[in-house]
Amino acid sequence: MNAPPPPDFDAAFRAELHNLLRWRRDVRRFRADPVPQAMLDELWTLAALAPSVGLSQPWRFVLVESPARRAAIRANFATANAQALSDQSPDRGALYARLKLAGLDEAPVQFALFSESNPAQGHGLGRRTMPQTLAYSSVMAVHTLWLAARALGLGLGWVSILDPVAAMSALDVPASWDFIGHFCLGWPQTADDSPELEREGWEKRRQAVGVALVR
Amino acid sequence: MNAPPPPDFDAAFRAELHNLLRWRRDVRRFRADPVPQAMLDELWTLAALAPSVGLSQPWRFVLVESPARRAAIRANFATANAQALSDQSPDRGALYARLKLAGLDEAPVQFALFSESNPAQGHGLGRRTMPQTLAYSSVMAVHTLWLAARALGLGLGWVSILDPVAAMSALDVPASWDFIGHFCLGWPQTADDSPELEREGWEKRRQAVGVALVR
Repeated sequence: MNAPPPPDFDAAFRAELHNLLRWRRDVRRFRADPVPQAMLDELWTLAALAPSVGLSQPWRFVLVESPARRAAIRANFATANAQALSDQSPDRGALYARLKLAGLDEAPVQFALFSESNPAQGHGLGRRTMPQTLAYSSVMAVHTLWLAARALGLGLGWVSILDPVAAMSALDVPASWDFIGHFCLGWPQTADDSPELEREGWEKRRQAVGVALVR
Repeated sequence: MNAPPPPDFDAAFRAELHNLLRWRRDVRRFRADPVPQAMLDELWTLAALAPSVGLSQPWRFVLVESPARRAAIRANFATANAQALSDQSPDRGALYARLKLAGLDEAPVQFALFSESNPAQGHGLGRRTMPQTLAYSSVMAVHTLWLAARALGLGLGWVSILDPVAAMSALDVPASWDFIGHFCLGWPQTADDSPELEREGWEKRRQAVGVALVR
């Protein structure tokens, strides 16, 4: 069996890849148009190419479609977001209240991501001292999906303002799964090369923060 | 100030992106050739484009260059790997012992990644109920670097078979930093579209594991 020849990624591809990284956004404002099923299928397939500790592939994607379960996630977010607002300092509360932090009301596709905490696959390799590498593998799967989605013109938004225990219970998943996040997917209303939190004045992105201290 | 027009990613780019995802590997076998500084600078810059909770950019990359610190990481790995080997079932121990699980002896560039557990940047947004989203953000930064490295022909290997407390102590970093992983970077000896753990018979990759259960 001959392996295919390795691809030779050229400067033009790298420039486009850098554009993809620059124009990937956390999206909270979606159009209502549906996402074709073929695109979703492609995204799940590509996500499974992500790195995983011991080749354990611990990611568990759960499409949330039932109106009752979507309502439970919205209520969970509303409670957690109200608590976060009440924690804000007086000088930031008004700005926080103006931010749109999720697209739960309008995103056509919504899914949760869990990570199996004790997968048989992988035979435990690589995670004995660092079991959190399972969750990290699942994060790389959704990050893979995120980039592939943006390359299709789709936007993804990560909703982390949630009580993870309540989210697990609302979605009725096995107790061995860890909740990673809830995600909104769809066609973004706009495209931008700067984060919405920066455009809204919440925080500024730094070019080289935390990079390459030498030891 | 006019924003640049959004890029229009086409089918040819997506096909190349899918190739990149398919040919990204966890690399443990490196050539000795150095990595040009300009490439490293480009990788740190691109990593800073990763998504981060509340735009907190909590990743802290530490280049490990001193022979003493590299030796401490190698010793840490040797101990953790010996313990992992002794945990193997009788039928898998011989195979485990044959695996090459890190490129610490030969990789020209080695760095650790930490995640600041209480960053001022981001003002706490998005992580009140899920502080682990900081570590997840740092994981997406190194995954960004991983893909950008592969597009340059470079390989990255994630070393997780380490005692994280000893790794922190060996690298003398602030106590508020969480250890995410240690990484080897350099020119890979070979290119492959299947994981080394699969080629060595440790585990099989599944095409669509954990994908799109519906609730």
